[in-house]
Amino acid sequence: MKTVSIIGLGLIGGSFGLALRKNMPGVTRLGVDQNEKNAQKALELGIVDDIVDEAEAIRRADLIILATPVDSLATLLPKYLDGIQKHQTIIDAGSTKEAVLDAVKNHSNRSRYVATHPMAGTEYSGPEAALSNLFEGKCCVFCDIQNSDDAAVETARKMYRSMGMHFSELPGADHDLHVAYVSHISHIASFALALTVLAKEKEEEQIFELASGGFGSTVRLAKSNPETWIPIFRQNRDNVLDVLDEYINTVSRFRSLLIKQDFNTFFQLIEQANEIRRIIG
Amino acid sequence: MKTVSIIGLGLIGGSFGLALRKNMPGVTRLGVDQNEKNAQKALELGIVDDIVDEAEAIRRADLIILATPVDSLATLLPKYLDGIQKHQTIIDAGSTKEAVLDAVKNHSNRSRYVATHPMAGTEYSGPEAALSNLFEGKCCVFCDIQNSDDAAVETARKMYRSMGMHFSELPGADHDLHVAYVSHISHIASFALALTVLAKEKEEEQIFELASGGFGSTVRLAKSNPETWIPIFRQNRDNVLDVLDEYINTVSRFRSLLIKQDFNTFFQLIEQANEIRRIIG
Repeated sequence: MKTVSIIGLGLIGGSFGLALRKNMPGVTRLGVDQNEKNAQKALELGIVDDIVDEAEAIRRADLIILATPVDSLATLLPKYLDGIQKHQTIIDAGSTKEAVLDAVKNHSNRSRYVATHPMAGTEYSGPEAALSNLFEGKCCVFCDIQNSDDAAVETARKMYRSMGMHFSELPGADHDLHVAYVSHISHIASFALALTVLAKEKEEEQIFELASGGFGSTVRLAKSNPETWIPIFRQNRDNVLDVLDEYINTVSRFRSLLIKQDFNTFFQLIEQANEIRRIIG
Repeated sequence: MKTVSIIGLGLIGGSFGLALRKNMPGVTRLGVDQNEKNAQKALELGIVDDIVDEAEAIRRADLIILATPVDSLATLLPKYLDGIQKHQTIIDAGSTKEAVLDAVKNHSNRSRYVATHPMAGTEYSGPEAALSNLFEGKCCVFCDIQNSDDAAVETARKMYRSMGMHFSELPGADHDLHVAYVSHISHIASFALALTVLAKEKEEEQIFELASGGFGSTVRLAKSNPETWIPIFRQNRDNVLDVLDEYINTVSRFRSLLIKQDFNTFFQLIEQANEIRRIIG
């Protein structure tokens, strides 16, 4: 692998650029971003070696990484696949998978595409937020790989492995349901918490003086960029709605226990919630 | 100040002990804990210089720190105040204030008590979780100080200042409402999130493989100890219920926007939530 093109130079695309420089130093990195300022910033930060136009990026690359907001993938991916050669591989890094998989399922070059989701991110966005170790120690999910050429899958694995990722495989539909649980609902819970407290702040100015570490970690995700997240919620709406209903039921259960002053059951529920220690250490 | 007694040697009491050793090294620290194992552990960890019985701890101390679960304060504080001398000061570190303030409002030695809440904690509990720098850089709220002697307030301030805290003042009732917003509701949001995802895990084993950093920070508080938190929810029930209603309304608003596919309003709400950056940096 000599040349990698990164389409979209935000937090994720930028982190690919920095991680490639660190872990595969012989590779030439070409970058594309429709926002000229982002593109120049990425060049300054050493995220890519060169900014080129889309056609050149696709033509010259051994591996093309799509790191644009998820609603653009169903348009960009078929177009890029149209012109792709047999030695080239395209991957995406999107947080939702069903829509993009559906958009290319009958494409004649489908097998050169590998659907991947490196499960990593922060609440910040743009090339300035990129981190060379963002992917280190994290899980990358490969979806529906039976529809990708083995060589294309191996190209993607090789790059992710160099960045310190481990792998998981899921059908696209399962992936989208799972991320609704472990990622998308966390964001809504956090947005809602931020809005609840910000609304109160209008009456009670001192309220945030008391905010300590616990509050900060719970609302951290509320800083996340709507440009990234609205496309995700749009594409994963049905799954997110299902999980949101369960979440509202659970929160409402705490409300009803408080109303009834049933602190024994409340205690047991906290003990059950404590089992999360098993997962997050 | 020569001798400080710490009643309750968990995360908070233990952190007082370690912070005193670090910042006021000449002070003798006496400890009391009804759990014999906790008491011995605290001694081993250097949290206190000696374990004594309750009567001795009260008799010998210049400053008594109450760091037991909040439901015990309304019983312990009046009893300790009964036997206190004019040169002694008692403070508590509880997360709710109205009930304890009410329990001593007509006590003849009320003025030797200073109601304080150092806004600091972690999701862990017990003396092993104690940290010498837990309070550093955080805010300590003093409640209803017009009912405390100036000298007693100054004794408390001096100790907290040595630990690197800054101060805020609030009436007890306002304090309890504010902490419902910036602390108690975060815990319920986090407990509910943990339960929602743990319930799904029973069907979908792989679900937590995909959990990344964002999920971890949002459910961190779900590891919190029910022994600490049930008394808090019991004492602050009415405020927590009010805030919980607002939180459920806000989460439900996101649900209704998803149902209607009104992603423009959803986008605006995320932008509003992003204002939390102003607070948590």
